[in-house]
Amino acid sequence: MHKRLFIPGPTETPPEILQAQTKWLIGHRSAEYTALYDSVLTQLRKFFETKQHLTVLTSSGTLWMDITARSIVKKKALAVTCGAFSNRMFSTIKDAGKDVDQLDIEWGKAAKPEDVLEALSKGDYDTVTVVANETSTGVRTPVYEIGEAIKKEYPDVMYVIDAVSSLGGDLLYPDKIKSDVIFTSTQKAFALPPGLSIGIFSEDAVTRARSVDARGHYTDLIAYHDYYLKKKQNPATPNVSLMFALDYQLGRMLEETHVGRYERHLAMADLTRKWAKKHFEMFPEPGYESVTVSTINNTLGRSIGDLNKELAKRGYQISNGYGTKLKEITFRIGHMGEWNPTEVQSLLWHIEDIWGL
Amino acid sequence: MHKRLFIPGPTETPPEILQAQTKWLIGHRSAEYTALYDSVLTQLRKFFETKQHLTVLTSSGTLWMDITARSIVKKKALAVTCGAFSNRMFSTIKDAGKDVDQLDIEWGKAAKPEDVLEALSKGDYDTVTVVANETSTGVRTPVYEIGEAIKKEYPDVMYVIDAVSSLGGDLLYPDKIKSDVIFTSTQKAFALPPGLSIGIFSEDAVTRARSVDARGHYTDLIAYHDYYLKKKQNPATPNVSLMFALDYQLGRMLEETHVGRYERHLAMADLTRKWAKKHFEMFPEPGYESVTVSTINNTLGRSIGDLNKELAKRGYQISNGYGTKLKEITFRIGHMGEWNPTEVQSLLWHIEDIWGL
Repeated sequence: MHKRLFIPGPTETPPEILQAQTKWLIGHRSAEYTALYDSVLTQLRKFFETKQHLTVLTSSGTLWMDITARSIVKKKALAVTCGAFSNRMFSTIKDAGKDVDQLDIEWGKAAKPEDVLEALSKGDYDTVTVVANETSTGVRTPVYEIGEAIKKEYPDVMYVIDAVSSLGGDLLYPDKIKSDVIFTSTQKAFALPPGLSIGIFSEDAVTRARSVDARGHYTDLIAYHDYYLKKKQNPATPNVSLMFALDYQLGRMLEETHVGRYERHLAMADLTRKWAKKHFEMFPEPGYESVTVSTINNTLGRSIGDLNKELAKRGYQISNGYGTKLKEITFRIGHMGEWNPTEVQSLLWHIEDIWGL
Repeated sequence: MHKRLFIPGPTETPPEILQAQTKWLIGHRSAEYTALYDSVLTQLRKFFETKQHLTVLTSSGTLWMDITARSIVKKKALAVTCGAFSNRMFSTIKDAGKDVDQLDIEWGKAAKPEDVLEALSKGDYDTVTVVANETSTGVRTPVYEIGEAIKKEYPDVMYVIDAVSSLGGDLLYPDKIKSDVIFTSTQKAFALPPGLSIGIFSEDAVTRARSVDARGHYTDLIAYHDYYLKKKQNPATPNVSLMFALDYQLGRMLEETHVGRYERHLAMADLTRKWAKKHFEMFPEPGYESVTVSTINNTLGRSIGDLNKELAKRGYQISNGYGTKLKEITFRIGHMGEWNPTEVQSLLWHIEDIWGL
């Protein structure tokens, strides 16, 4: 039986989107491809109401951590961490041989502007990284407030946001956030198969990248930027099939509108939070809960592994807590992409039924 | 009208392979995914008769140039170049801030074992890179002979092969070639959409990588290797849809056998070369012509751009020469993946008809 994915990615991709991948391939140096890519970027620009640069790469979102490390961090970064994925950004910068300090926020809590400002005052940082939506803890970072604070006090510091599990679902406008780099991948709120990543970056990010040495090629923001300016295409062969699907799905996303998608995600999150508070409790601190993934304290101590086995028989799948730290202590319900409140309701009913809540 | 792609990638992907991408998505941390990935790796292992390590990454083949630069080159590399794509390996290593010398072979000629040995004797190199099939010139490098020579004289030097445009079509057995890293991407001789890359690497490559600093994450061979050993999965979210298609296509490839695929590619190449010699001449030096892409001297001086416009009306597409250096002076016919001699014959007939040959 097909399992409806209520995990925090990959999320369910509707059949018509999967089918959009089956068009005959076209050459990636052809005028047809240029038109396809232009349509994708134009729609992304409209959806995010941005004047910044846009690029779509053939990779998972993780590549952008390496792009940050290799193309944005010049001498020293501050990585704000609050869970497994923001930690990965910290370790990627370190593993790339760059100097990086960690501002580690307790798991379940969100970084606040004053935390970031205080940390920035203590070192000579040229880059700060945050996660918009920490997939392990279900915490939503106040990225607008942090952006406002950073850019007021430290206008030269590059503001990099991992928005993998919320961009396209949450209400995120890069120009208003004042981010220099914000990125996601296709299998989360965009409801596509994994395989492409989307980055939106400022002119300041381009200027910075030009001044950074040893950027490599696949991790070089300038390679992407300059090739696009020259040829309106990607330097390496892109995933053309998935680009067709992205083009199709962006049409649907524009029809729903950015605000419309956010409101639907918020409605699913509200429903899940209310349900969680009735039977369990939410893991994130109040007011900072994600709108795309709810991390719930497993206060009844039931086995999440067993629950998922029962759910599988009914054609559903949720996620256990992330990693050794949160597994079985919490569980996660992803409500992103194309799901709607009615379907979330069905899932919650099945959990109640299995657990006799 | 659908254009049959006789370009050197992406090549034609048959509808049933495109359709294999439309299965319902599964979570990439699920047992189902582990089974899918295991099936892919088992089939690859069988096809390439290799005892080396295997990994499938979500990227174009280009990522492996960065993996080479970041994870394999320790102090100094020798990049053997003979066209645009082998040049890209040279520049990627340089752009990653590593020391690299270039052994530049005249375009159209192939590097010979003695060239490589002589160059290796002149510097303290820890890595040598070659291209198995230079897509710009249509030259096939004698990778077995070079491997034999290198490993006899310089056993500690890592032997890295970019086989993007021939692996899965040409006869390439990594263990017999004695390569330490050999890689390709899915849109060439594998006849799939672009979006995944395949790397086969030796235990020595793993040992080397462990000793190299600042490997980053997406460019870290060890990150892939160790995660696989621990979890039999990929560290970053893989393109699950394309993995389904790869699994399906590998079944077909095993049925045809490695030798069978090579013989079919050779038959298509033979046909194209004979035709080219009748009307034009081949660009590569005799004996070193690629079996997957024929680069032909445009001795009649006809416009390739115009030819492609006429071919488009008939549902065909070939390639112009690569870059400013070879454009209009040469043209390229890709005959790889799932094409067969009959279809190549049709294409050649259409060219004759358009040009009145």
